[in-house]
Amino acid sequence: MKKINKAVKKIREANRKIMEEAQLRLDNLTKPLGSLGRLEELAKQIAGITGKLDPELKNKVIFTLAADHGVTEEGVSLYPKEVTAQMVYNFLNGGAGINVLARHVGAKVIVVDIGVTEDLKPHSKLIIKKVNYGTSNMAKGPAMTRDEAIKTIEAGIEIFNDELKNGIDILGTGEMGIGNTTAASAITAAFIDKPVEEITGRGTGLNDLGLRNKIDIIKRSLALNKPDPLDPIDVLSKVGGFEIGGLVGIILAAASHNIPVVIDGFISGAAALVAFKIEPKVKDYMIAAHKSQEGGHKIILEHIGLRPLLDLDLRLGEGTGGALGIGLADAAIKILTQMATFKSANVSEKNI
Amino acid sequence: MKKINKAVKKIREANRKIMEEAQLRLDNLTKPLGSLGRLEELAKQIAGITGKLDPELKNKVIFTLAADHGVTEEGVSLYPKEVTAQMVYNFLNGGAGINVLARHVGAKVIVVDIGVTEDLKPHSKLIIKKVNYGTSNMAKGPAMTRDEAIKTIEAGIEIFNDELKNGIDILGTGEMGIGNTTAASAITAAFIDKPVEEITGRGTGLNDLGLRNKIDIIKRSLALNKPDPLDPIDVLSKVGGFEIGGLVGIILAAASHNIPVVIDGFISGAAALVAFKIEPKVKDYMIAAHKSQEGGHKIILEHIGLRPLLDLDLRLGEGTGGALGIGLADAAIKILTQMATFKSANVSEKNI
Repeated sequence: MKKINKAVKKIREANRKIMEEAQLRLDNLTKPLGSLGRLEELAKQIAGITGKLDPELKNKVIFTLAADHGVTEEGVSLYPKEVTAQMVYNFLNGGAGINVLARHVGAKVIVVDIGVTEDLKPHSKLIIKKVNYGTSNMAKGPAMTRDEAIKTIEAGIEIFNDELKNGIDILGTGEMGIGNTTAASAITAAFIDKPVEEITGRGTGLNDLGLRNKIDIIKRSLALNKPDPLDPIDVLSKVGGFEIGGLVGIILAAASHNIPVVIDGFISGAAALVAFKIEPKVKDYMIAAHKSQEGGHKIILEHIGLRPLLDLDLRLGEGTGGALGIGLADAAIKILTQMATFKSANVSEKNI
Repeated sequence: MKKINKAVKKIREANRKIMEEAQLRLDNLTKPLGSLGRLEELAKQIAGITGKLDPELKNKVIFTLAADHGVTEEGVSLYPKEVTAQMVYNFLNGGAGINVLARHVGAKVIVVDIGVTEDLKPHSKLIIKKVNYGTSNMAKGPAMTRDEAIKTIEAGIEIFNDELKNGIDILGTGEMGIGNTTAASAITAAFIDKPVEEITGRGTGLNDLGLRNKIDIIKRSLALNKPDPLDPIDVLSKVGGFEIGGLVGIILAAASHNIPVVIDGFISGAAALVAFKIEPKVKDYMIAAHKSQEGGHKIILEHIGLRPLLDLDLRLGEGTGGALGIGLADAAIKILTQMATFKSANVSEKNI
């Protein structure tokens, strides 16, 4: 718990003074006031997070954490559990969606085994931080022990700190874990008073029957484990996942280092929700990349008070939406730092 | 009219067979079916437009056309007319919003004087295709003659053809012209049966009084000039603008050469509407970059049947939203062409 407390204690609100200065600069750029809409808000937010009027977003990093979920034995996903490990190899070989989109925005992908069921073959790019070999089936008991929940958050903090040595100017959250929309739905339902039916979606593409089963399993898991919404670590341990816990740690660590965090989709959203419940100030550091097709995601974003940048019907995860969000953040900062002012460009200001 | 007819005659529907093949490939990539949502639709559309399963989007071009509007003498804009010319110099010096965002996505900006009131200083990057020194005040008579309307569309086709020699794989539309949201609103109202109040927005930031005046001017212009919605060139000549006509030509020319066109905001939308009224098949070639804050824009997109990619509260024009749209198109094509398949990556397919 020491590592977590240390990170949390360092989290401050974003720098309001720099945000005001950024607004002033934005208002002097050669464009009608506020006409670049959410790009301007984003630039201002990143200025506030970094405390810099000229933040550089050179080192872009996406953390894609993989882990397995015991609850898959209840048939909550269309895909077999082995796919988690197979997709890790795909990430390492550069063939997955996240690799393509990360390259597109100039981001590095850090691939982590934080709880895959099998022992993965060593690879120069694979980081092994296995907390356990997949979670236990939450429909039959807690997904993990409280100790494991703490360990997985701390593993996230360590992963962040290790990469920080190479430089991180902005990061995106990503994950892979067959069955993890079930965990994300259960976490959301544990914290937010909404019907499980409204929170739960089709994941990788369940049909009506599959969706009904998934909802039943989530309800059963919640009834059995009784996660305490006032104790975020209890929620994570009882109905969470290792990759979700790892992302909680990464989010807290990023906020404690004044680094903007682009939150990907629903699973990342569940991690953001846990981090927010641990320390609400972390919200200032979060950028919601997109609105996933999973209903629970919108509920999370509204609860935290985040407005997603993109609405492209994405539901892949891995950090794919986060990568596109990093691209927009980059564009926003270039607007703030590269555009001419009315004065420098000799452009007349408005009449009134 | 010959140039226009020639371009229009060459416009075919997008290639449905290639679109089916693209869908098949998308369905075999290592991700749940359809999980990259609108990026997949976009990739499929571009495959259909270009007729290629591996389209290359190397040469990205944004055409930013500038012209003045006689109707500015009615006080429809917050900014003085001189700003059009001043902003052209800003484009040429690389300090405007469009320059920053075009650089961000690796696009070239082609700056054209198609009807600015003053004679601009020569510049190696400035293309002069002046149809006239600004339009006439449409509140007192037609904005331009029918002959000028034809000439401005043909100028657009010529601008496109000249740049085609350097290669164009995808293009974005852009414009600059103080007063042009008034022209765009009038065009929209001429074609689509909606109240002028619903179509007209605050442009660069009018207050309530200014907005009321703008609505009155548009109503008066429509009543006076009686543009014929069955004759798109009549509409363009009576209540249009030179930059809008030029974009009509560029859009038609692009479609006739199987090149995808990313439509920027409201003004570009009005040009897209005129092009669509000339030849509805042009729709297949259009990608709506974003939903502008101007109410008329949504009305145009719904009328044509386009769904915008982004909703970032942009209302700058210049091609800025188009630039971001080109970035997404690029991402979409990389997904189609660079991702591994289930087979190549040895990933298990779904159980059912």
